[in-house]
Amino acid sequence: MIEEKGILFILSGPSGVGKGTVRKKLFEEASELQYSISMTTRDMRPGEVDGVDYFYKSVEEFEKLIEENQLLEYAKYVSNYYGTPRKYVEETLEKGQDVFLEIEVQGALQVKENFPEGVFIFLFPPSLEELKNRIVNRGTESQELVVNRLKEARKEIEMMDAYDYVVVNDRVEHAVDRVKAIIKSEHLKRERVAKQYKKILEDELK
Amino acid sequence: MIEEKGILFILSGPSGVGKGTVRKKLFEEASELQYSISMTTRDMRPGEVDGVDYFYKSVEEFEKLIEENQLLEYAKYVSNYYGTPRKYVEETLEKGQDVFLEIEVQGALQVKENFPEGVFIFLFPPSLEELKNRIVNRGTESQELVVNRLKEARKEIEMMDAYDYVVVNDRVEHAVDRVKAIIKSEHLKRERVAKQYKKILEDELK
Repeated sequence: MIEEKGILFILSGPSGVGKGTVRKKLFEEASELQYSISMTTRDMRPGEVDGVDYFYKSVEEFEKLIEENQLLEYAKYVSNYYGTPRKYVEETLEKGQDVFLEIEVQGALQVKENFPEGVFIFLFPPSLEELKNRIVNRGTESQELVVNRLKEARKEIEMMDAYDYVVVNDRVEHAVDRVKAIIKSEHLKRERVAKQYKKILEDELK
Repeated sequence: MIEEKGILFILSGPSGVGKGTVRKKLFEEASELQYSISMTTRDMRPGEVDGVDYFYKSVEEFEKLIEENQLLEYAKYVSNYYGTPRKYVEETLEKGQDVFLEIEVQGALQVKENFPEGVFIFLFPPSLEELKNRIVNRGTESQELVVNRLKEARKEIEMMDAYDYVVVNDRVEHAVDRVKAIIKSEHLKRERVAKQYKKILEDELK
């Protein structure tokens, strides 16, 4: 009914909380969301498509974009850069489409600095015990790594204050419903829509 | 899971926009909401129950409560007072239950002054034309009254800026879904829940 820019939603939370599972289920149910496509310097793998799986760049190109503040966040894993291109996000929002970004806490805090108008959702574990179980059950981590990850998770939970919403991931389907309610209600915020509504009235009164 | 105070939701909007219909349908679907019970000086009618339909007070009692700022809003129709008692609302919220208030724009603005922490939802007509039709179709109003009400409605729409959300009442069930999303997401706001979540963690770490 009214023309409106899209909203950037950021789902984040401690390691092991289930961000990926929630995001996956959300995308099955909310087809109008656009997942943010990352940029990387790693090699394209067989079957991957540029602009679908990732935007593939050389290290020189990537570092130039960092300098120009063209990345909402970025990090280096092993010897490859990964990041979120500002231009792609802004162009998608401009078309009136929401963008959804699922990301680690450190990355989310970078996005918050570069794009404070985003809506930041913190996924919270039902309990520390449960979080520990989930990390252990991945089975890929040593005892020492589990302890470290749990310590890290506690630190990350302290960073909750930078977020707009807290969603507890007790059951995936409940967490997804909560995120959907946030997406819906954010589009109803008066400061986003009042101008357009008043314009509709003015047009009718002409 | 966490203990939390209830939230006061205020649904308002211009005359004829369909506030009553939306509220009624919402209450059929959201049984956990508590409808705010008004206070009045009018006589109790057969079948009505004090503390259920209204809180019934004498004019002297009511005017004393006005003086003591014990009403979130009030108005006088013909020779009777009607108002929203602060104490009832606050006690219900304290129990962790949400309170829902459906009210005229003037009353909502009074509530906003006395209880700014409420969540204010403005119900918006799909068009001025549609609003006019709805007022005319009530059939009880003269041509002159319709023109006046429409003029009034335009003024009320200008007051949208005092509200937190704008919900267009294109179809009742859509409007109700939007209000339900607002109720759900307001309970997920970080500033409401972060303290309790952090406490849960501290308790676990003891």
